[in-house]
Amino acid sequence: MKPSAMAKQGIHVAEILTVGTELLMGQILNRNALYLAEQLRDLGISSYYQTTCGDNRERLSATLRQAIERSDCVLITGGLGPTQDDLTMEVVAQETGLTLELDRVALAEIEAYYQRSGRPMPPNNQKQAMLPREGEILINRNGTAPGTMVSVRKQSQDGLCLLVVLPGPPNENQLMFQEQVTAVLAELSPHRFRNSYLKLVGIGESNAELLIQDFIEQQSNPSIAPYCSPGEVKFRVTQRYQDESEPDLCTPLIEQLHERLKPYVYEIGHRTLDEVVRDLLLSQGKTLALAESCTGGYLSNLLCQKDGASSFFLGSVVSYANSAKANLLGVETSTLETEGAVSEACALEMAKGARKAFGSDIALSITGIAGPSGGSVEKPVGTVYIALETARQKLVKKFHFQGTRSKCQQLAAVQALNLIRLALLEETKLADDGKGRTAGMA
Amino acid sequence: MKPSAMAKQGIHVAEILTVGTELLMGQILNRNALYLAEQLRDLGISSYYQTTCGDNRERLSATLRQAIERSDCVLITGGLGPTQDDLTMEVVAQETGLTLELDRVALAEIEAYYQRSGRPMPPNNQKQAMLPREGEILINRNGTAPGTMVSVRKQSQDGLCLLVVLPGPPNENQLMFQEQVTAVLAELSPHRFRNSYLKLVGIGESNAELLIQDFIEQQSNPSIAPYCSPGEVKFRVTQRYQDESEPDLCTPLIEQLHERLKPYVYEIGHRTLDEVVRDLLLSQGKTLALAESCTGGYLSNLLCQKDGASSFFLGSVVSYANSAKANLLGVETSTLETEGAVSEACALEMAKGARKAFGSDIALSITGIAGPSGGSVEKPVGTVYIALETARQKLVKKFHFQGTRSKCQQLAAVQALNLIRLALLEETKLADDGKGRTAGMA
Repeated sequence: MKPSAMAKQGIHVAEILTVGTELLMGQILNRNALYLAEQLRDLGISSYYQTTCGDNRERLSATLRQAIERSDCVLITGGLGPTQDDLTMEVVAQETGLTLELDRVALAEIEAYYQRSGRPMPPNNQKQAMLPREGEILINRNGTAPGTMVSVRKQSQDGLCLLVVLPGPPNENQLMFQEQVTAVLAELSPHRFRNSYLKLVGIGESNAELLIQDFIEQQSNPSIAPYCSPGEVKFRVTQRYQDESEPDLCTPLIEQLHERLKPYVYEIGHRTLDEVVRDLLLSQGKTLALAESCTGGYLSNLLCQKDGASSFFLGSVVSYANSAKANLLGVETSTLETEGAVSEACALEMAKGARKAFGSDIALSITGIAGPSGGSVEKPVGTVYIALETARQKLVKKFHFQGTRSKCQQLAAVQALNLIRLALLEETKLADDGKGRTAGMA
Repeated sequence: MKPSAMAKQGIHVAEILTVGTELLMGQILNRNALYLAEQLRDLGISSYYQTTCGDNRERLSATLRQAIERSDCVLITGGLGPTQDDLTMEVVAQETGLTLELDRVALAEIEAYYQRSGRPMPPNNQKQAMLPREGEILINRNGTAPGTMVSVRKQSQDGLCLLVVLPGPPNENQLMFQEQVTAVLAELSPHRFRNSYLKLVGIGESNAELLIQDFIEQQSNPSIAPYCSPGEVKFRVTQRYQDESEPDLCTPLIEQLHERLKPYVYEIGHRTLDEVVRDLLLSQGKTLALAESCTGGYLSNLLCQKDGASSFFLGSVVSYANSAKANLLGVETSTLETEGAVSEACALEMAKGARKAFGSDIALSITGIAGPSGGSVEKPVGTVYIALETARQKLVKKFHFQGTRSKCQQLAAVQALNLIRLALLEETKLADDGKGRTAGMA
């Protein structure tokens, strides 16, 4: 049956079935599951399962059957290639009693694809034009394998399931989904979601939840979900609604949560911490320079991963060796000898030196012991000093991070970004006060 | 039961169950499935399914039961957090009749974790120490949630299934798996594999395959599998065997392949390109400094990700702004004005400046346009110059990379490492020649 046969039932719950031995062998990341899950969420369609199986007739049949019985829609990707091990379309037809036949439109599209690339069509590509007679073709504008959309009957109960069969390569299925599937699913989805995010730094997940425990216990719609990543916590607030006219319940709830968590909130929305810092720098017209020791360029690299970094980031000295701290940043030899490279004094001198060397408005330094080797009783692995200097502020903070070398580096970068963020907010206040004094924050 | 109860049955087939609403909502890529799938493959354990479900009692129970019945081992990740929506350990116990009890060792570990970080343990973290009495604890060195390994009985047939429950954050479960699970699974896997790797740089996958096509066509055991990552190609040669006494067929095949691919081979074995460079630097007692522009600290960070970088890496100047190129690296203002920052001359001066500033034996510079914005007809996005200077060598190479900003940065780093590698090999030759002349390699 055509997808429109689903109109009365609607699509409440969908699941994702990714087919490919390379996924089972750990050769590629499952980017299709991510993309399709995101699309379902935005369409207000619930998704309870994602399954991956290989190009194997029996297992694919069984997995497909299970998915059909428990969902209103199954998004299937992969296994549509021209070679013998590509079984998906055949298995779909066999398991659900559909009839594959040569689709003239599909064949013409495949031939045209080869013509455009100036190569003859290998004979085995004709197989890709064999599509279920009962379905609707999905044209592939980025490759040869067409997809299909077709409704099938469930076996265990009354009802239909919409099968959407898509090719495996992400650039092929994403374009196909976006252009030819989204509108169909939107029409069939009974729900809509509103999502809002509250992002925190400087507090752990457990402590953050304790502060809003009453809200978490009472939640129903909107719901509150916590996520954490190294050094950060995020709460997602989701409102389910049916009609655009229903009032927005997310914004007032986010405001209440914000009130409780204020000192830790760096963002209400989608921006990452480095993006918040970037936007603050840009809006204040300020420039940044770094002096990194134990993080070895991690923070510089993070800031340079996005286009446009050159409008606020002047550069960094990765002063791994002590001689580099002295020669490039002007850290006093006496400081290195008496206090050591991992010390409050050294961090402050590094920040000062970076600010001078690059001529930046703000400079931040990181020096510490990322481990796993090194460290002492007084300064164990994970000890990190972060210092910051502007024309008006000078501060240094000591941290003890836990975990592997790379986790220490990540945590140091998060804390460093937060210090820059707080210093930039402080700058605005200082400017408002109209005073030029040095403010300590540590 | 303890994992050792599986000894007679062995582990032939395992599957991966990733738990997390954020996966179903399309918020994060499923890196755990990739990592664990790769590990199973290397252990010679087949994997037919990967399933993702949310933090939902009923669906998690059903999915777990299905996995137990059809596999010898289930690797479960996620849902071990301290909060109310983290259900995995509880559901595992309930579904399989295990008894959760407070594990003193686990609790002490969690308390020690908080103590080290100087924060009090929130009361809800105690929940994470509730582990199956019948299992073996897996210590978490990168976080608070311990895991467990426990064998349970199947319901539909005779036989056992080993459950390995791991925390969700990749840095936590990977370390745990590697240190505490791999050896147990290796012992229980009935297959043995001999793997050898040939690693190449400076040639694409298709061309590399063409050079060894006859070997690829004739392969059976050992098999030859190609992998590629940005800028690199890897061939894995795998021999399946049952008995340690069977002769090693990998080494002779690797030697034959090496013969064909020699100019591109940087490693026979497991070392990454940066590790090969590190080992060459260490064995020659040489030091390295960098000057990075468009890569923004990517290469420095790569070199500093592993312990012991301080024994060869002196540091880097991330000279994002032109003023930094002039002030910190001594690039002539006239060069920047006439040739531009992305030029052969600027790259050479940056390398020279870095070598002088850090006093290193070798200095390498990278300057280019990583995009997506910027670039011109003459110097389109992807144009990158890499220069290198030692006491005896001075060279510069121009590249045109394709792809996103981050791919350009990765490709530049790979080519840069390869230039350092070749220069170090050349140094040995030059030293052997006993001549002090400057050799150009570009």
